[in-house]
Amino acid sequence: MNKESIKEFTIDCFLSAAECNAQQEMSLPLLVQRLIDVSTAHANATGIGYDRLLQFNSTWVLSRLTVEMERLPSVNENYSLTTWIETLNRHFSERNVEIRDNRGKAIGYARLVWVAIDIDSRRPADLSPLLDSVETSAKDCPIARQTRLTPIGDPDDISMYRFRFSDIDFNRHVNSTRYIQLILDCLSLEFFDKRRVAGFEIAYHNEACYGDIAEVRRKGDENAQEFEIVRDDTVCTRARVRFSPRKVVN
Amino acid sequence: MNKESIKEFTIDCFLSAAECNAQQEMSLPLLVQRLIDVSTAHANATGIGYDRLLQFNSTWVLSRLTVEMERLPSVNENYSLTTWIETLNRHFSERNVEIRDNRGKAIGYARLVWVAIDIDSRRPADLSPLLDSVETSAKDCPIARQTRLTPIGDPDDISMYRFRFSDIDFNRHVNSTRYIQLILDCLSLEFFDKRRVAGFEIAYHNEACYGDIAEVRRKGDENAQEFEIVRDDTVCTRARVRFSPRKVVN
Repeated sequence: MNKESIKEFTIDCFLSAAECNAQQEMSLPLLVQRLIDVSTAHANATGIGYDRLLQFNSTWVLSRLTVEMERLPSVNENYSLTTWIETLNRHFSERNVEIRDNRGKAIGYARLVWVAIDIDSRRPADLSPLLDSVETSAKDCPIARQTRLTPIGDPDDISMYRFRFSDIDFNRHVNSTRYIQLILDCLSLEFFDKRRVAGFEIAYHNEACYGDIAEVRRKGDENAQEFEIVRDDTVCTRARVRFSPRKVVN
Repeated sequence: MNKESIKEFTIDCFLSAAECNAQQEMSLPLLVQRLIDVSTAHANATGIGYDRLLQFNSTWVLSRLTVEMERLPSVNENYSLTTWIETLNRHFSERNVEIRDNRGKAIGYARLVWVAIDIDSRRPADLSPLLDSVETSAKDCPIARQTRLTPIGDPDDISMYRFRFSDIDFNRHVNSTRYIQLILDCLSLEFFDKRRVAGFEIAYHNEACYGDIAEVRRKGDENAQEFEIVRDDTVCTRARVRFSPRKVVN
Protein backbone atom coordinates (compact mmCIF):
# COMPACT_ATOMS: atom_id res chain seq x y z
CA MET A 1 0.00 0.00 0.00
CA ASN A 2 1.48 3.37 -0.94
CA LYS A 3 1.66 6.43 1.31
CA GLU A 4 -1.26 8.10 -0.46
CA SER A 5 -3.66 5.23 0.18
CA ILE A 6 -2.58 4.91 3.82
CA LYS A 7 -3.69 8.50 4.46
CA GLU A 8 -7.18 7.06 4.17
CA PHE A 9 -7.69 3.55 5.44
CA THR A 10 -10.77 1.35 4.86
CA ILE A 11 -12.09 -1.84 6.43
CA ASP A 12 -14.98 -3.84 5.01
CA CYS A 13 -17.45 -5.41 7.43
CA PHE A 14 -20.59 -7.51 7.38
CA LEU A 15 -23.44 -7.25 9.88
CA SER A 16 -24.45 -10.77 10.89
CA ALA A 17 -27.89 -11.57 12.29
CA ALA A 18 -26.38 -12.51 15.67
CA GLU A 19 -24.84 -9.02 15.91
CA CYS A 20 -28.13 -7.13 15.39
CA ASN A 21 -30.25 -5.38 17.95
CA ALA A 22 -34.02 -5.87 18.40
CA GLN A 23 -34.70 -3.52 15.47
CA GLN A 24 -32.62 -5.77 13.17
CA GLU A 25 -29.93 -3.14 12.69
CA MET A 26 -26.41 -2.47 13.97
CA SER A 27 -26.37 -1.54 17.63
CA LEU A 28 -24.66 1.67 18.72
CA PRO A 29 -22.14 -0.17 20.97
CA LEU A 30 -21.08 -2.36 18.01
CA LEU A 31 -20.73 0.72 15.77
CA VAL A 32 -18.46 2.32 18.36
CA GLN A 33 -16.42 -0.89 18.63
CA ARG A 34 -15.93 -0.85 14.84
CA LEU A 35 -14.90 2.85 14.99
CA ILE A 36 -12.26 1.89 17.57
CA ASP A 37 -11.24 -1.13 15.43
CA VAL A 38 -10.68 0.91 12.26
CA SER A 39 -8.76 3.56 14.24
CA THR A 40 -6.51 0.89 15.75
CA ALA A 41 -5.94 -0.87 12.42
CA HIS A 42 -5.01 2.38 10.66
CA ALA A 43 -2.68 3.41 13.51
CA ASN A 44 -0.99 -0.02 13.37
CA ALA A 45 -0.65 0.15 9.55
CA THR A 46 1.07 3.55 9.75
CA GLY A 47 3.37 2.71 12.65
CA ILE A 48 1.68 4.82 15.32
CA GLY A 49 -0.27 2.03 17.06
CA TYR A 50 -0.17 0.78 20.62
CA ASP A 51 3.24 -0.89 20.00
CA ARG A 52 4.86 2.42 19.04
CA LEU A 53 3.39 4.25 22.04
CA LEU A 54 4.62 1.48 24.35
CA GLN A 55 8.17 2.54 23.37
CA PHE A 56 7.62 5.71 25.41
CA ASN A 57 5.52 4.00 28.09
CA SER A 58 2.25 5.41 26.77
CA THR A 59 -1.00 4.08 25.40
CA TRP A 60 -3.82 5.46 23.26
CA VAL A 61 -7.09 6.30 25.02
CA LEU A 62 -10.33 7.35 23.35
CA SER A 63 -11.24 10.69 24.89
CA ARG A 64 -14.23 11.97 22.90
CA LEU A 65 -16.49 10.65 20.20
CA THR A 66 -19.32 12.11 18.19
CA VAL A 67 -21.27 10.28 15.52
CA GLU A 68 -24.16 11.25 13.23
CA MET A 69 -26.00 8.51 11.34
CA GLU A 70 -28.59 8.91 8.59
CA ARG A 71 -29.34 5.23 9.19
CA LEU A 72 -27.53 2.24 10.69
CA PRO A 73 -26.47 -0.84 8.66
CA SER A 74 -29.20 -3.51 8.50
CA VAL A 75 -29.06 -7.26 9.08
CA ASN A 76 -26.92 -9.11 6.49
CA GLU A 77 -25.60 -5.85 5.06
CA ASN A 78 -22.03 -5.22 3.98
CA TYR A 79 -20.70 -1.86 5.10
CA SER A 80 -17.35 -0.13 5.21
CA LEU A 81 -15.51 2.32 7.40
CA THR A 82 -12.92 4.76 6.04
CA THR A 83 -10.75 6.67 8.50
CA TRP A 84 -8.22 9.48 8.27
CA ILE A 85 -6.39 11.83 10.63
CA GLU A 86 -7.53 15.43 10.44
CA THR A 87 -5.02 16.87 12.91
CA LEU A 88 -2.33 15.60 15.26
CA ASN A 89 -0.61 17.77 17.83
CA ARG A 90 1.38 17.17 21.02
CA HIS A 91 -1.78 16.67 23.04
CA PHE A 92 -4.25 14.74 20.90
CA SER A 93 -5.19 13.31 17.53
CA GLU A 94 -8.45 14.17 15.74
CA ARG A 95 -9.53 11.21 13.64
CA ASN A 96 -12.62 11.02 11.43
CA VAL A 97 -14.54 8.05 10.02
CA GLU A 98 -16.96 7.82 7.10
CA ILE A 99 -19.45 4.92 7.26
CA ARG A 100 -20.72 3.67 3.90
CA ASP A 101 -23.52 1.23 3.15
CA ASN A 102 -23.58 -1.79 0.81
CA ARG A 103 -24.00 0.49 -2.23
CA GLY A 104 -21.08 2.69 -1.24
CA LYS A 105 -23.29 5.57 -0.09
CA ALA A 106 -22.13 7.52 2.98
CA ILE A 107 -24.70 6.95 5.74
CA GLY A 108 -22.84 8.56 8.61
CA TYR A 109 -19.72 10.18 9.99
CA ALA A 110 -17.81 10.07 13.25
CA ARG A 111 -15.21 12.28 14.90
CA LEU A 112 -12.89 10.73 17.50
CA VAL A 113 -10.39 12.47 19.74
CA TRP A 114 -7.58 10.16 20.88
CA VAL A 115 -5.11 11.15 23.58
CA ALA A 116 -2.02 9.36 24.84
CA ILE A 117 -1.54 8.69 28.53
CA ASP A 118 1.45 7.44 30.49
CA ILE A 119 0.83 3.81 31.42
CA ASP A 120 1.93 4.22 35.05
CA SER A 121 0.80 7.72 36.02
CA ARG A 122 -2.37 7.63 33.79
CA ARG A 123 -1.55 11.31 33.11
CA PRO A 124 -1.51 12.81 29.57
CA ALA A 125 1.59 11.90 27.57
CA ASP A 126 3.35 13.97 24.93
CA LEU A 127 2.68 12.93 21.31
CA SER A 128 5.67 14.90 19.93
CA PRO A 129 7.59 11.72 18.94
CA LEU A 130 4.80 10.96 16.42
CA LEU A 131 4.56 14.37 14.78
CA ASP A 132 6.94 13.50 11.94
CA SER A 133 5.36 10.07 11.30
CA VAL A 134 1.82 11.15 10.60
CA GLU A 135 0.22 12.30 7.39
CA THR A 136 -3.11 14.04 7.73
CA SER A 137 -5.84 14.08 5.09
CA ALA A 138 -8.02 17.01 4.03
CA LYS A 139 -10.99 14.72 3.30
CA ASP A 140 -14.22 16.42 4.34
CA CYS A 141 -16.07 15.33 7.49
CA PRO A 142 -19.44 17.09 7.25
CA ILE A 143 -20.43 16.92 10.93
CA ALA A 144 -19.72 19.45 13.66
CA ARG A 145 -16.83 19.10 16.07
CA GLN A 146 -17.54 17.89 19.61
CA THR A 147 -19.28 20.31 21.92
CA ARG A 148 -18.56 20.53 25.64
CA LEU A 149 -20.73 18.09 27.61
CA THR A 150 -21.71 19.91 30.78
CA PRO A 151 -23.08 18.41 34.04
CA ILE A 152 -26.68 17.32 33.53
CA GLY A 153 -27.96 18.68 36.85
CA ASP A 154 -30.87 16.93 38.56
CA PRO A 155 -31.49 13.65 36.72
CA ASP A 156 -34.95 12.31 35.85
CA ASP A 157 -33.82 8.92 37.14
CA ILE A 158 -30.79 7.04 38.41
CA SER A 159 -29.90 3.36 38.08
CA MET A 160 -27.07 1.54 39.80
CA TYR A 161 -24.67 -0.99 38.27
CA ARG A 162 -21.67 -2.93 39.59
CA PHE A 163 -19.02 -3.67 36.93
CA ARG A 164 -18.36 -7.37 36.42
CA PHE A 165 -15.95 -9.65 34.56
CA SER A 166 -17.53 -9.25 31.10
CA ASP A 167 -17.38 -5.45 31.34
CA ILE A 168 -13.58 -5.30 31.57
CA ASP A 169 -11.37 -4.78 28.52
CA PHE A 170 -7.78 -5.70 27.62
CA ASN A 171 -6.52 -2.58 29.49
CA ARG A 172 -8.22 -3.86 32.70
CA HIS A 173 -10.71 -1.00 32.70
CA VAL A 174 -14.39 -0.91 31.83
CA ASN A 175 -14.82 -1.37 28.08
CA SER A 176 -15.63 1.89 26.25
CA THR A 177 -18.63 0.28 24.58
CA ARG A 178 -19.99 -1.09 27.86
CA TYR A 179 -20.76 2.43 29.10
CA ILE A 180 -22.85 2.92 25.96
CA GLN A 181 -24.87 -0.24 26.69
CA LEU A 182 -25.54 1.05 30.21
CA ILE A 183 -26.72 4.35 28.75
CA LEU A 184 -29.09 2.80 26.21
CA ASP A 185 -30.41 0.35 28.81
CA CYS A 186 -31.92 3.29 30.73
CA LEU A 187 -34.54 3.38 27.95
CA SER A 188 -37.14 0.77 27.02
CA LEU A 189 -37.40 -1.62 24.09
CA GLU A 190 -40.62 0.18 23.08
CA PHE A 191 -38.77 3.51 23.02
CA PHE A 192 -36.28 2.13 20.47
CA ASP A 193 -39.10 0.63 18.38
CA LYS A 194 -40.38 4.18 17.81
CA ARG A 195 -37.08 6.08 17.75
CA ARG A 196 -33.61 5.45 16.39
CA VAL A 197 -30.27 6.92 17.43
CA ALA A 198 -29.51 9.76 15.01
CA GLY A 199 -26.68 11.45 16.89
CA PHE A 200 -24.44 10.37 19.76
CA GLU A 201 -21.72 12.16 21.66
CA ILE A 202 -19.64 10.83 24.55
CA ALA A 203 -16.71 12.12 26.60
CA TYR A 204 -14.58 9.69 28.62
CA HIS A 205 -13.30 11.49 31.71
CA ASN A 206 -12.17 8.85 34.22
CA GLU A 207 -11.76 5.11 34.04
CA ALA A 208 -13.86 2.67 36.06
CA CYS A 209 -12.58 -0.73 37.17
CA TYR A 210 -13.83 -4.19 38.06
CA GLY A 211 -16.09 -4.08 41.12
CA ASP A 212 -16.75 -0.33 40.97
CA ILE A 213 -20.37 0.62 41.58
CA ALA A 214 -21.66 3.20 39.11
CA GLU A 215 -24.65 5.53 39.12
CA VAL A 216 -26.16 5.99 35.68
CA ARG A 217 -27.99 9.33 35.63
CA ARG A 218 -30.44 10.15 32.84
CA LYS A 219 -32.37 13.28 31.85
CA GLY A 220 -34.32 14.14 28.70
CA ASP A 221 -37.26 13.48 26.44
CA GLU A 222 -38.13 11.59 23.27
CA ASN A 223 -35.92 13.82 21.13
CA ALA A 224 -32.73 13.98 23.19
CA GLN A 225 -31.31 12.51 26.37
CA GLU A 226 -28.27 13.37 28.48
CA PHE A 227 -26.39 10.88 30.66
CA GLU A 228 -23.71 10.80 33.32
CA ILE A 229 -22.00 7.71 34.68
CA VAL A 230 -20.47 8.43 38.07
CA ARG A 231 -18.53 6.33 40.61
CA ASP A 232 -17.57 7.64 44.07
CA ASP A 233 -18.51 11.21 43.02
CA THR A 234 -16.12 10.95 40.06
CA VAL A 235 -17.60 11.39 36.58
CA CYS A 236 -16.52 8.50 34.32
CA THR A 237 -18.42 9.58 31.20
CA ARG A 238 -20.95 12.11 29.98
CA ALA A 239 -23.03 11.47 26.90
CA ARG A 240 -25.81 12.96 24.81
CA VAL A 241 -28.08 11.04 22.45
CA ARG A 242 -30.33 12.55 19.80
CA PHE A 243 -33.23 10.47 18.45
CA SER A 244 -35.27 10.53 15.24
CA PRO A 245 -38.72 9.01 14.83
CA ARG A 246 -38.69 5.76 12.85
CA LYS A 247 -40.86 5.58 9.75
CA VAL A 248 -44.09 3.77 10.66
CA VAL A 249 -44.57 0.61 8.58
CA ASN A 250 -48.31 -0.03 7.98
CA MET B 1 -17.95 -22.22 -5.26
CA ASN B 2 -18.58 -25.85 -6.20
CA LYS B 3 -20.70 -28.33 -4.27
CA GLU B 4 -17.66 -30.03 -2.79
CA SER B 5 -16.28 -26.88 -1.23
CA ILE B 6 -19.70 -25.85 0.13
CA LYS B 7 -19.83 -29.06 2.20
CA GLU B 8 -17.20 -27.36 4.33
CA PHE B 9 -17.47 -23.62 4.72
CA THR B 10 -14.81 -21.29 6.18
CA ILE B 11 -14.81 -17.70 7.42
CA ASP B 12 -11.66 -15.77 8.28
CA CYS B 13 -11.73 -13.46 11.27
CA PHE B 14 -9.44 -11.09 13.13
CA LEU B 15 -9.53 -10.47 16.88
CA SER B 16 -9.26 -6.73 17.46
CA ALA B 17 -8.00 -5.27 20.74
CA ALA B 18 -11.43 -3.76 21.44
CA GLU B 19 -12.98 -7.24 21.23
CA CYS B 20 -10.68 -8.83 23.83
CA ASN B 21 -11.43 -9.71 27.41
CA ALA B 22 -9.30 -8.74 30.42
CA GLN B 23 -6.88 -11.60 29.68
CA GLN B 24 -6.24 -10.18 26.17
CA GLU B 25 -7.90 -13.12 24.46
CA MET B 26 -11.20 -13.85 22.72
CA SER B 27 -14.10 -13.92 25.15
CA LEU B 28 -16.37 -16.96 25.26
CA PRO B 29 -19.50 -14.94 24.30
CA LEU B 30 -17.71 -13.61 21.20
CA LEU B 31 -16.57 -17.14 20.26
CA VAL B 32 -20.18 -18.33 20.49
CA GLN B 33 -21.34 -15.39 18.38
CA ARG B 34 -18.79 -16.34 15.70
CA LEU B 35 -19.96 -20.00 15.85
CA ILE B 36 -23.52 -18.77 15.20
CA ASP B 37 -22.24 -16.43 12.44
CA VAL B 38 -20.42 -19.20 10.55
CA SER B 39 -23.43 -21.52 10.91
CA THR B 40 -25.75 -18.84 9.52
CA ALA B 41 -23.41 -17.95 6.67
CA HIS B 42 -23.03 -21.61 5.62
CA ALA B 43 -26.80 -22.19 5.82
CA ASN B 44 -27.40 -19.09 3.67
CA ALA B 45 -24.76 -20.16 1.13
CA THR B 46 -26.37 -23.59 0.73
CA GLY B 47 -29.98 -22.35 0.56
CA ILE B 48 -31.13 -23.61 3.97
CA GLY B 49 -30.89 -20.31 5.84
CA TYR B 50 -33.52 -18.28 7.66
CA ASP B 51 -35.08 -17.19 4.33
CA ARG B 52 -35.75 -20.78 3.27
CA LEU B 53 -37.27 -21.70 6.63
CA LEU B 54 -39.52 -18.63 6.49
CA GLN B 55 -41.18 -20.25 3.44
CA PHE B 56 -42.70 -22.79 5.83
CA ASN B 57 -43.20 -20.29 8.67
CA SER B 58 -40.23 -21.62 10.66
CA THR B 59 -36.96 -20.31 11.99
CA TRP B 60 -33.67 -21.81 13.13
CA VAL B 61 -32.98 -21.88 16.86
CA LEU B 62 -29.73 -22.94 18.54
CA SER B 63 -30.66 -25.71 20.94
CA ARG B 64 -27.37 -27.08 22.26
CA LEU B 65 -23.73 -26.20 22.03
CA THR B 66 -20.53 -27.76 23.26
CA VAL B 67 -17.05 -26.38 22.69
CA GLU B 68 -13.57 -27.53 23.69
CA MET B 69 -10.65 -25.11 23.31
CA GLU B 70 -6.94 -25.85 23.67
CA ARG B 71 -6.53 -22.07 23.77
CA LEU B 72 -8.51 -19.03 22.64
CA PRO B 73 -7.33 -16.64 19.89
CA SER B 74 -5.16 -13.79 21.25
CA VAL B 75 -5.28 -10.05 20.65
CA ASN B 76 -4.51 -9.06 17.02
CA GLU B 77 -4.63 -12.70 15.89
CA ASN B 78 -6.18 -13.92 12.66
CA TYR B 79 -8.25 -17.07 13.12
CA SER B 80 -10.67 -19.06 11.04
CA LEU B 81 -13.79 -21.14 11.55
CA THR B 82 -14.68 -24.09 9.29
CA THR B 83 -18.14 -25.61 9.59
CA TRP B 84 -19.90 -28.66 8.18
CA ILE B 85 -23.11 -30.59 8.78
CA GLU B 86 -22.63 -34.01 10.34
CA THR B 87 -26.28 -35.09 10.29
CA LEU B 88 -29.65 -33.62 9.41
CA ASN B 89 -32.96 -35.31 10.17
CA ARG B 90 -36.58 -34.20 10.48
CA HIS B 91 -36.02 -32.92 14.00
CA PHE B 92 -32.59 -31.29 14.12
CA SER B 93 -29.28 -30.58 12.43
CA GLU B 94 -25.91 -31.47 13.98
CA ARG B 95 -23.31 -28.97 12.86
CA ASN B 96 -19.62 -28.95 13.79
CA VAL B 97 -16.99 -26.21 13.71
CA GLU B 98 -13.20 -26.38 13.70
CA ILE B 99 -11.41 -23.27 15.04
CA ARG B 100 -7.91 -22.68 13.65
CA ASP B 101 -5.28 -20.19 14.75
CA ASN B 102 -3.15 -17.79 12.67
CA ARG B 103 -0.81 -20.64 11.65
CA GLY B 104 -3.70 -22.87 10.54
CA LYS B 105 -3.43 -25.17 13.58
CA ALA B 106 -6.71 -26.47 15.01
CA ILE B 107 -7.08 -25.01 18.52
CA GLY B 108 -10.63 -26.12 19.24
CA TYR B 109 -13.86 -27.70 18.10
CA ALA B 110 -17.55 -27.07 18.63
CA ARG B 111 -20.72 -29.11 18.17
CA LEU B 112 -24.01 -27.27 17.66
CA VAL B 113 -27.51 -28.70 17.52
CA TRP B 114 -29.93 -26.51 15.57
CA VAL B 115 -33.67 -27.12 15.59
CA ALA B 116 -36.43 -25.42 13.61
CA ILE B 117 -39.46 -23.98 15.36
CA ASP B 118 -42.75 -22.65 14.01
CA ILE B 119 -42.67 -18.86 14.21
CA ASP B 120 -46.17 -18.55 15.70
CA SER B 121 -46.55 -21.59 17.94
CA ARG B 122 -42.81 -21.67 18.96
CA ARG B 123 -43.21 -25.49 18.76
CA PRO B 124 -40.73 -27.74 16.91
CA ALA B 125 -41.12 -27.65 13.12
CA ASP B 126 -40.47 -30.45 10.64
CA LEU B 127 -37.18 -30.20 8.70
CA SER B 128 -38.28 -32.74 6.04
CA PRO B 129 -38.42 -30.09 3.25
CA LEU B 130 -34.65 -29.63 3.65
CA LEU B 131 -33.60 -33.28 3.60
CA ASP B 132 -32.89 -33.32 -0.14
CA SER B 133 -31.02 -30.00 -0.11
CA VAL B 134 -28.32 -30.82 2.39
CA GLU B 135 -24.98 -32.50 1.89
CA THR B 136 -23.28 -33.73 5.01
CA SER B 137 -19.52 -34.09 5.48
CA ALA B 138 -17.62 -36.93 7.14
CA LYS B 139 -14.90 -34.56 8.42
CA ASP B 140 -13.79 -35.62 11.88
CA CYS B 141 -14.87 -33.67 14.97
CA PRO B 142 -12.70 -35.04 17.78
CA ILE B 143 -14.83 -33.95 20.75
CA ALA B 144 -17.62 -35.85 22.46
CA ARG B 145 -21.28 -35.28 21.65
CA GLN B 146 -23.37 -33.22 24.09
CA THR B 147 -24.28 -34.85 27.38
CA ARG B 148 -27.56 -34.29 29.16
CA LEU B 149 -27.39 -31.27 31.46
CA THR B 150 -29.36 -32.19 34.57
CA PRO B 151 -30.79 -29.84 37.24
CA ILE B 152 -27.96 -28.52 39.41
CA GLY B 153 -29.79 -28.95 42.73
CA ASP B 154 -29.03 -26.54 45.58
CA PRO B 155 -26.87 -23.73 44.18
CA ASP B 156 -23.84 -22.24 45.96
CA ASP B 157 -25.19 -18.79 45.12
CA ILE B 158 -27.91 -17.02 43.18
CA SER B 159 -27.83 -13.63 41.45
CA MET B 160 -30.77 -11.77 39.94
CA TYR B 161 -30.89 -9.95 36.62
CA ARG B 162 -33.61 -8.08 34.70
CA PHE B 163 -33.21 -8.25 30.91
CA ARG B 164 -32.87 -4.87 29.26
CA PHE B 165 -32.77 -3.34 25.77
CA SER B 166 -29.16 -4.35 24.93
CA ASP B 167 -29.86 -8.00 25.84
CA ILE B 168 -32.50 -8.48 23.13
CA ASP B 169 -31.68 -9.93 19.72
CA PHE B 170 -33.20 -9.62 16.23
CA ASN B 171 -35.77 -12.34 17.14
CA ARG B 172 -36.96 -10.18 20.08
CA HIS B 173 -35.66 -12.72 22.62
CA VAL B 174 -32.65 -12.60 24.90
CA ASN B 175 -29.47 -12.96 22.83
CA SER B 176 -27.91 -16.44 23.07
CA THR B 177 -24.55 -14.93 23.96
CA ARG B 178 -26.01 -12.72 26.69
CA TYR B 179 -26.82 -15.77 28.83
CA ILE B 180 -23.14 -16.72 28.60
CA GLN B 181 -22.06 -13.30 29.86
CA LEU B 182 -24.43 -13.67 32.81
CA ILE B 183 -22.92 -17.06 33.57
CA LEU B 184 -19.30 -15.88 33.45
CA ASP B 185 -20.17 -12.78 35.49
CA CYS B 186 -20.96 -15.02 38.48
CA LEU B 187 -17.18 -15.46 38.77
CA SER B 188 -14.52 -12.87 39.57
CA LEU B 189 -11.88 -11.20 37.44
CA GLU B 190 -9.24 -12.83 39.66
CA PHE B 191 -10.74 -16.26 38.98
CA PHE B 192 -10.25 -15.77 35.23
CA ASP B 193 -6.70 -14.49 35.73
CA LYS B 194 -5.83 -17.90 37.16
CA ARG B 195 -8.11 -20.12 35.06
CA ARG B 196 -9.24 -20.19 31.46
CA VAL B 197 -12.34 -21.74 29.91
CA ALA B 198 -11.31 -25.12 28.49
CA GLY B 199 -14.74 -26.63 27.87
CA PHE B 200 -18.22 -25.17 27.70
CA GLU B 201 -21.62 -26.75 27.22
CA ILE B 202 -25.01 -25.03 27.11
CA ALA B 203 -28.59 -26.13 26.44
CA TYR B 204 -31.22 -23.55 25.51
CA HIS B 205 -34.58 -24.72 26.84
CA ASN B 206 -36.94 -21.73 26.92
CA GLU B 207 -36.66 -18.19 25.65
CA ALA B 208 -36.58 -15.15 27.91
CA CYS B 209 -37.87 -11.74 26.84
CA TYR B 210 -37.37 -8.06 27.54
CA GLY B 211 -38.25 -7.22 31.16
CA ASP B 212 -38.11 -10.80 32.42
CA ILE B 213 -36.33 -11.20 35.74
CA ALA B 214 -33.91 -14.13 35.82
CA GLU B 215 -32.25 -16.05 38.61
CA VAL B 216 -28.70 -17.12 37.75
CA ARG B 217 -27.85 -20.17 39.88
CA ARG B 218 -24.24 -21.34 40.22
CA LYS B 219 -22.59 -24.38 41.77
CA GLY B 220 -19.05 -25.71 41.50
CA ASP B 221 -15.36 -25.30 42.20
CA GLU B 222 -12.19 -24.08 40.50
CA ASN B 223 -12.25 -26.96 38.01
CA ALA B 224 -15.87 -26.99 36.90
CA GLN B 225 -19.04 -25.01 37.44
CA GLU B 226 -22.68 -25.68 36.64
CA PHE B 227 -25.27 -22.96 35.98
CA GLU B 228 -29.01 -22.58 35.55
CA ILE B 229 -30.83 -19.46 34.38
CA VAL B 230 -34.45 -19.55 35.47
CA ARG B 231 -37.39 -17.13 35.09
CA ASP B 232 -40.78 -17.73 36.77
CA ASP B 233 -39.76 -21.31 37.64
CA THR B 234 -39.03 -22.01 33.96
CA VAL B 235 -35.48 -23.06 33.05
CA CYS B 236 -34.16 -20.90 30.19
CA THR B 237 -30.69 -22.43 29.97
CA ARG B 238 -28.41 -24.88 31.73
CA ALA B 239 -24.66 -24.76 31.27
CA ARG B 240 -21.46 -26.38 32.44
CA VAL B 241 -18.00 -24.82 32.27
CA ARG B 242 -14.69 -26.64 32.68
CA PHE B 243 -11.58 -24.62 33.57
CA SER B 244 -7.84 -25.18 33.16
CA PRO B 245 -5.15 -23.43 35.17
CA ARG B 246 -3.32 -20.74 33.20
CA LYS B 247 0.42 -21.01 32.90
CA VAL B 248 1.96 -18.70 35.48
CA VAL B 249 4.20 -16.08 33.88
CA ASN B 250 7.11 -15.20 36.20
